[in-house]
Amino acid sequence: MLGQEILRRLDQAGDCSWPGPGVTRTFCSDEHRRVLPLIEHWMHRAGLAAELDAAGNLVGRCPRAQSGEPTLILGSHQDTVVEGGKYDGMLGVVLPLVALEALANRGTTLPYGIEVVAFGDEEGTRFQSTLVGSKALAGDFDHAMLEARDAEDVSMRDALRDFGGDPEAIDGLAREASRTLGFVEVHIEQGPLLEQRALPVGVVTAITGIERHRVTVIGKAGHAGTTPMAGRRDALVGAAWMVVEVDRLLNEIEDFVGVVGKLEVRPNAVNVIPAAVEFTLELRSPQGEIRQQGARQVMDAVTDIARERGLALDIECTYRAEGVPCAEWIIAALERASEGCGQPPFRLFSGAGHDGLAMHSLTDIGMLFVRCRDGLSHHPDEAISAADAEVAAQVLMRFLEDLPATLEARG
Amino acid sequence: MLGQEILRRLDQAGDCSWPGPGVTRTFCSDEHRRVLPLIEHWMHRAGLAAELDAAGNLVGRCPRAQSGEPTLILGSHQDTVVEGGKYDGMLGVVLPLVALEALANRGTTLPYGIEVVAFGDEEGTRFQSTLVGSKALAGDFDHAMLEARDAEDVSMRDALRDFGGDPEAIDGLAREASRTLGFVEVHIEQGPLLEQRALPVGVVTAITGIERHRVTVIGKAGHAGTTPMAGRRDALVGAAWMVVEVDRLLNEIEDFVGVVGKLEVRPNAVNVIPAAVEFTLELRSPQGEIRQQGARQVMDAVTDIARERGLALDIECTYRAEGVPCAEWIIAALERASEGCGQPPFRLFSGAGHDGLAMHSLTDIGMLFVRCRDGLSHHPDEAISAADAEVAAQVLMRFLEDLPATLEARG
Repeated sequence: MLGQEILRRLDQAGDCSWPGPGVTRTFCSDEHRRVLPLIEHWMHRAGLAAELDAAGNLVGRCPRAQSGEPTLILGSHQDTVVEGGKYDGMLGVVLPLVALEALANRGTTLPYGIEVVAFGDEEGTRFQSTLVGSKALAGDFDHAMLEARDAEDVSMRDALRDFGGDPEAIDGLAREASRTLGFVEVHIEQGPLLEQRALPVGVVTAITGIERHRVTVIGKAGHAGTTPMAGRRDALVGAAWMVVEVDRLLNEIEDFVGVVGKLEVRPNAVNVIPAAVEFTLELRSPQGEIRQQGARQVMDAVTDIARERGLALDIECTYRAEGVPCAEWIIAALERASEGCGQPPFRLFSGAGHDGLAMHSLTDIGMLFVRCRDGLSHHPDEAISAADAEVAAQVLMRFLEDLPATLEARG
Repeated sequence: MLGQEILRRLDQAGDCSWPGPGVTRTFCSDEHRRVLPLIEHWMHRAGLAAELDAAGNLVGRCPRAQSGEPTLILGSHQDTVVEGGKYDGMLGVVLPLVALEALANRGTTLPYGIEVVAFGDEEGTRFQSTLVGSKALAGDFDHAMLEARDAEDVSMRDALRDFGGDPEAIDGLAREASRTLGFVEVHIEQGPLLEQRALPVGVVTAITGIERHRVTVIGKAGHAGTTPMAGRRDALVGAAWMVVEVDRLLNEIEDFVGVVGKLEVRPNAVNVIPAAVEFTLELRSPQGEIRQQGARQVMDAVTDIARERGLALDIECTYRAEGVPCAEWIIAALERASEGCGQPPFRLFSGAGHDGLAMHSLTDIGMLFVRCRDGLSHHPDEAISAADAEVAAQVLMRFLEDLPATLEARG
């Protein structure tokens, strides 16, 4: 069973962790170094030549890829959040290698180049800058990132150099779009939809765009016993109306999710009318238009509430990342492969960011999601089943086998 | 003009303050000691003999009071909050003394005993225990209070002894109810009602009761991008509905005020669905029945919201103090005195606590509120006008002159 082999390898990789619950393995850390020989070994077993690149990615290439033939890139990231799980990221490295090894053992030769990448950094845990590895391959690496410093004031430049990378050579990693067939990533869902529908795998249609705002609501403090209710300008009551209304809009509009995750009250005293509230507002949608239109509705509602209640309002956008669509031909091919494995095709979007966000500027992207227990991720209890890993591996193998026909049909 | 003299004296008393903005004068502090000779001097000018009592109150008595005749007690507290104003408390000490001096100068002799008290501690700023002075006079002093310690670990017992008080003799301060005519306090309103109605003074009907609760709402954390909106158990959305509904009930029910003043979110992260929210809920009403019934409605509403949204709920009562009514005969007499001074009578309740809360167990109480600028109190910018102080002094003088007739009419 490939599923059991995948879980066994993920357990092994998970042992390469900073002590503590779950898995903590950050970019260019000792744990990152310890996991490399494992992955190299699995790459060799899959018939790939392994190499640590200038950006700290471990790249495995088949002979066709090495000789410059059109190449499909598979892979995901090796790094984790602090006290994360064994599956987020590493599943997308281990599973393709097991699948390729199984295809080789079966005597199947793929008539195109294959590259499997274990990206060094996607989570941004150590340097707070994400997608370092995939940006390098896409030719979009921003050298300013190298100046980012970790909690111990080590720069990414120094950490990467000490790790065996070459900061000055990163630009040379950019792949040629004309020789790249696409990028396909296998990843745990990090949400509950597959579990709710009792499905082992699902095909991703898009990776969400995200915008974040800091909303400040200013009212007027006052003695909570002596100030009559009528005429109060209670910043928390205003903010509460905003949270309620934002939640209503998020529930009403399809493919639009968001949260008020952080909220702080001033002066935050039991007997003082709240003078000010500051909260964060995060909005996501796989479709830029829905997100932008939804955001406008949300902002209008928040502004109306402030005006009606005599509250001053300040809204500042603190982050914005556009979402990217998966290529329709990859979506369709992954659906066909799922059906071929007896799985009803199911489409969903990714509410979290992934390396595809960066790879999209280089090539067509696609993702296969694998059901995870309780929709849980970024947590030591993150889990998938061997049976689901088996299904995902079979789907990927069929996708890889069918790829020549898929490409031919595209013309 | 008495008003100007009152403000002049309040400026002098305000100089007895810890350095910094506004007035900071705590119980048994150096500033408390410095203000005593001023008040003693004003007491002597009003024809009263001054004495520091065992509980740290400065008490001025006229000869009739000293000889045990039925006595009306006037007064308020000398202490302030940290960086408070010149008027909260001290107005109710200075104004009666100026009024009594003016009556004496006019040749008026009051045919009953008069006592003016500058209570040592009402705010509880230094030892977090309030109404020390008035509880002593009412015979309700709790000796456990003496063990309370200030920020420098000095006990109230030691502070009071060093100040010239006598902790062991406090019980002897209890006044005899049969020889006490009532307790009348002049105080700034600490709210905006008199200002809104362009009235210099108002008559208090009751001092509010207060209850405080700690409400904990428990939902379920989750990745804010990958967890669909439907089925979320967002503790902050639930808490927001509660804040909105509590505010609606508080606005709907008359003589019922309250606030959610403090609110904290866990984990309080921009991209995580709030797992838990803890907030405080303070409810006040001058009428115990309204407060209790209102509190039940509020709790029912909060409980319903939690149930509907699948949230766990914990409500803990952290504080409860029953309100007290002012005596109808004092209210009516203060109203007649106001009318006699050309002021339309206006009744309001006190949303803040006062020494009357303690004095009520000894005798009938009444309060006269004086308009304060912007309804502001507990703040360096706290202010009243000389004209309003003049009106309040005239009203009090008329009340004092009319008291024999008032008492006779009661029978």
